[in-house]
Amino acid sequence: MKKVVKVKDITIGEGMPKICIPILGETLEEIKEEAELLSTFDFDIVEWRADFFQFVEDMDCIKLAMEIIEENLGDKPMIFTLRSLKEGGKREVCEALYFEINRRVLETKNLDILDIELFHDKDEIESLINLAHKNGAKVIISNHDFQQTPSKDEILSRMNRAAQLGADIVKIAVMANDTEDVITVLDATRILKEDYLKIPLIAIAMGKKGMITRFAGEIFGSDITFATAKKTSAPGQLSVEDVKNIVQFIHKHTI
Amino acid sequence: MKKVVKVKDITIGEGMPKICIPILGETLEEIKEEAELLSTFDFDIVEWRADFFQFVEDMDCIKLAMEIIEENLGDKPMIFTLRSLKEGGKREVCEALYFEINRRVLETKNLDILDIELFHDKDEIESLINLAHKNGAKVIISNHDFQQTPSKDEILSRMNRAAQLGADIVKIAVMANDTEDVITVLDATRILKEDYLKIPLIAIAMGKKGMITRFAGEIFGSDITFATAKKTSAPGQLSVEDVKNIVQFIHKHTI
Repeated sequence: MKKVVKVKDITIGEGMPKICIPILGETLEEIKEEAELLSTFDFDIVEWRADFFQFVEDMDCIKLAMEIIEENLGDKPMIFTLRSLKEGGKREVCEALYFEINRRVLETKNLDILDIELFHDKDEIESLINLAHKNGAKVIISNHDFQQTPSKDEILSRMNRAAQLGADIVKIAVMANDTEDVITVLDATRILKEDYLKIPLIAIAMGKKGMITRFAGEIFGSDITFATAKKTSAPGQLSVEDVKNIVQFIHKHTI
Repeated sequence: MKKVVKVKDITIGEGMPKICIPILGETLEEIKEEAELLSTFDFDIVEWRADFFQFVEDMDCIKLAMEIIEENLGDKPMIFTLRSLKEGGKREVCEALYFEINRRVLETKNLDILDIELFHDKDEIESLINLAHKNGAKVIISNHDFQQTPSKDEILSRMNRAAQLGADIVKIAVMANDTEDVITVLDATRILKEDYLKIPLIAIAMGKKGMITRFAGEIFGSDITFATAKKTSAPGQLSVEDVKNIVQFIHKHTI
């Protein structure tokens, strides 16, 4: 039986892929501005990319930023993401600080979803997952490669590892350098959904060629898609209106 | 060097997939009505599905029908298709009559493109191709399976055989019963375009799941897509406006 993830009014893992928009503000003012802009858009989930935030090492500033997002977008689940530099993030954060910040955000007891990267210490990840679940937060375990697309088997292996660690949702986002890469991601998505995973999956082929993975999730098996209102956080991202139109069109004609 | 097929103002094999709409009228009146309706639409190619025409065995009626289509849609290349029952056509036509009708249509010297099915006598196909080229017509060699999707190797084999026979364009349209079938068609399309074919290809996964192949041709390698103005000629066909919007969207964001 497939598990879905219910957070606020959103059910991830059934029906159309849910549309997530990232907040990339570097200061509290920018975060406020983006949150206010996003409140005028029709989408499902907001991801706060805290690695863009200049004061991410200051817990009080993190709490202020979370309040601003809550005030403007409180009806939507929020993902807290501290993306490491090696996986496409904005700033270098040492391993200890990476876990420290994530722990303290969980301890606010005010977080819906935490993104934890697979390529960190296994025990630390497991303790963070336990802490998240203890504090009512769901966990995405994610993996990103901004240079290339790994083999299909490697993608299957990474996502199965992430699921076995106890993730509520698993995520893979890799760079498609050619059409074969796009098909690798589509087929890995299909196989994960049909043969392995009981939990929701996010699978993205980044770059222009990969755009199909950003709206055909309901056909191949990806449950969240990232779109933009203004700024983009990854190559190939499309506007929220365009993604919504095509996702709805595919839903209408496929189901 | 890839060959393109230039017919009237259309270049098949480069840029966006060209949009083809079938005419399915059973009588001259219906054909006239459809042709007049289609003249109000923005698309590239018209396919006359002559197997729907009740008087397809009467050469004078065929000429009248062609004139009607020419009068209303003369600016667009026309494909003449006598689809056999076993490949999803509307009526049973014996082998001799199949070739007789196609020959006589070519002899009008007024045909842009002829569709010939791969699964006929090889020598007859080759002589029909020669006749087509002698009379200024291009040839699509096509293959359809309305029940299932053959293996990737079988798709490659069929399309390579079609190309070796002397086709100007090759076409495969098979039924996708699951997502794996869709990926089989997408990957076969990619491999044919990247590794084998010098000529344009039409590759369609029919059915709801296959809809992605009807607008993502520019990413994977399919050069014509079939859409509908009113009636559909195959499962999963989409309206010409919807197909055009998504094809243009993909073009804008992929190239």
